[in-house]
Amino acid sequence: MFYTVIDILGTIAFAISGVLVAMDKKMDPFGLFIIAFVTAVGGGTLRDLLIGQTPVFWLTEMFYSYLIIGSSVFAIIFRSKLSVLRKSLFLFDTVGIGLYTIIGIEKGLSVGLHPFICIGLGTMSACFGGVIRDTLCNEIPVIFRQEVYATACILGGVVFFVLSGFNVPQDVALLIGGLVVITARLLAVKFKISLPKVY
Amino acid sequence: MFYTVIDILGTIAFAISGVLVAMDKKMDPFGLFIIAFVTAVGGGTLRDLLIGQTPVFWLTEMFYSYLIIGSSVFAIIFRSKLSVLRKSLFLFDTVGIGLYTIIGIEKGLSVGLHPFICIGLGTMSACFGGVIRDTLCNEIPVIFRQEVYATACILGGVVFFVLSGFNVPQDVALLIGGLVVITARLLAVKFKISLPKVY
Amino acid sequence: MFYTVIDILGTIAFAISGVLVAMDKKMDPFGLFIIAFVTAVGGGTLRDLLIGQTPVFWLTEMFYSYLIIGSSVFAIIFRSKLSVLRKSLFLFDTVGIGLYTIIGIEKGLSVGLHPFICIGLGTMSACFGGVIRDTLCNEIPVIFRQEVYATACILGGVVFFVLSGFNVPQDVALLIGGLVVITARLLAVKFKISLPKVY
Repeated sequence: MFYTVIDILGTIAFAISGVLVAMDKKMDPFGLFIIAFVTAVGGGTLRDLLIGQTPVFWLTEMFYSYLIIGSSVFAIIFRSKLSVLRKSLFLFDTVGIGLYTIIGIEKGLSVGLHPFICIGLGTMSACFGGVIRDTLCNEIPVIFRQEVYATACILGGVVFFVLSGFNVPQDVALLIGGLVVITARLLAVKFKISLPKVY
Repeated sequence: MFYTVIDILGTIAFAISGVLVAMDKKMDPFGLFIIAFVTAVGGGTLRDLLIGQTPVFWLTEMFYSYLIIGSSVFAIIFRSKLSVLRKSLFLFDTVGIGLYTIIGIEKGLSVGLHPFICIGLGTMSACFGGVIRDTLCNEIPVIFRQEVYATACILGGVVFFVLSGFNVPQDVALLIGGLVVITARLLAVKFKISLPKVY
Repeated sequence: MFYTVIDILGTIAFAISGVLVAMDKKMDPFGLFIIAFVTAVGGGTLRDLLIGQTPVFWLTEMFYSYLIIGSSVFAIIFRSKLSVLRKSLFLFDTVGIGLYTIIGIEKGLSVGLHPFICIGLGTMSACFGGVIRDTLCNEIPVIFRQEVYATACILGGVVFFVLSGFNVPQDVALLIGGLVVITARLLAVKFKISLPKVY
């Protein structure tokens, strides 16, 4: 129940972020909707494809399609007023990546993959919707250039496996891991922390 | 037999449209062929991957590879004269998307998916070859910006499910759905109808 | 053992080529690593997805992740000195595509696919990591425009099937096919051979 609420908020935030990027590119309503869709489910779709869990999750859980259609219509109608929601959307997005990281790690564990790969799948679930969004919008993915977004996911994943190593129950470790993702992202944005420059 | 002819015409039209876009980008013969290939089979490939029907269709049905190779060679040799075929290619392309929408819907039904998802898979089968083509050619996909292309597919899909709801036999409903796709696209192009602007 | 050494060298060369392209785009360390990763494993991942061999190879063979992480860190630290390795990297890359072409052909044969499709899968294994790298870096894939890279793979594949047709044992035919890929690429670069222009 708790997780479902976060999943809903995260999906809404991801879908609206897709609509906003697509609007910058002057896409038509169909384009806006598709970009909203891939932003929201793209990361999890790639994860499911790589581990072979098909049909991928959103083909059978209609919940996501309804939410994304609703969010897109909402974002298109209230497009001139979305800036007042900026802070809420940022927060939804942040709790969303915390949850998606956890879901990715869990799925990886369920098919017996190595901890490093599970962290990778978690990060992918949380971040690659945005990568596909930016690629379809003909931009270099923003998370490859500046945002401490993936790094927060990786950090949360590492914390989860360290805790598991100390025999912390999986549920507790996942919850803490997710909170680390969220905290790391909030702190990074607040204090403008970014990865060290290599140039 | 009837469907096979349409499939052949559609594949030729899709492959040649790929060669034309790739030529605008000054690609070499290998690039032209790959873009022709992804344009023709990209949508169906994505559909098969998402529902887990692997090996994907063109790995086992050699028919497509031969057709695409032949169409690419033809398009390269007669590149300066393709404009006389413009109308025929548009027509082939249009009956092609009608058929691919139907095939996508049928495949979705065959694995027991929700009508909305089946319509999405049909639209994807018809339209996402072009999306991958444009992305590889470093362009924002044209169907996200202007063409009433996907909308025609969605409309045909909706008609199919409405007819099915009234107990029209599946074959008849699919045929009518496909004709709706074709008619909607022809009318939209003739009367320059496009989706409402949101800006 | 012999193949493992080539696989290691090829993976290193592919990963470093990814880092170099990503550096041109001023990506941050996370971006550099992801581009290194997709360059190294992207082609094989696409191949595994299309034929339905999931989880894809690098999810279970940790070897690749360690190598790519190591190569990326190395390339970032010694970024100003990588030009002295240019020739070695070119050689590693070339033996790498020879091997990956062979592996792709073998995988295609193991699931009973047509020779043409096997050659396609081999070429894809060797070349599509670079295609995904360039697409994520917002460039038209370089192998679609100039390099005789894919053509070398196709040539090696054809030689393999011709030899098989004359009852040459599969191991020997694969080895010769791989050597043809490597030789064709070396000769093409040395004598600046490219595909005929179509413009």
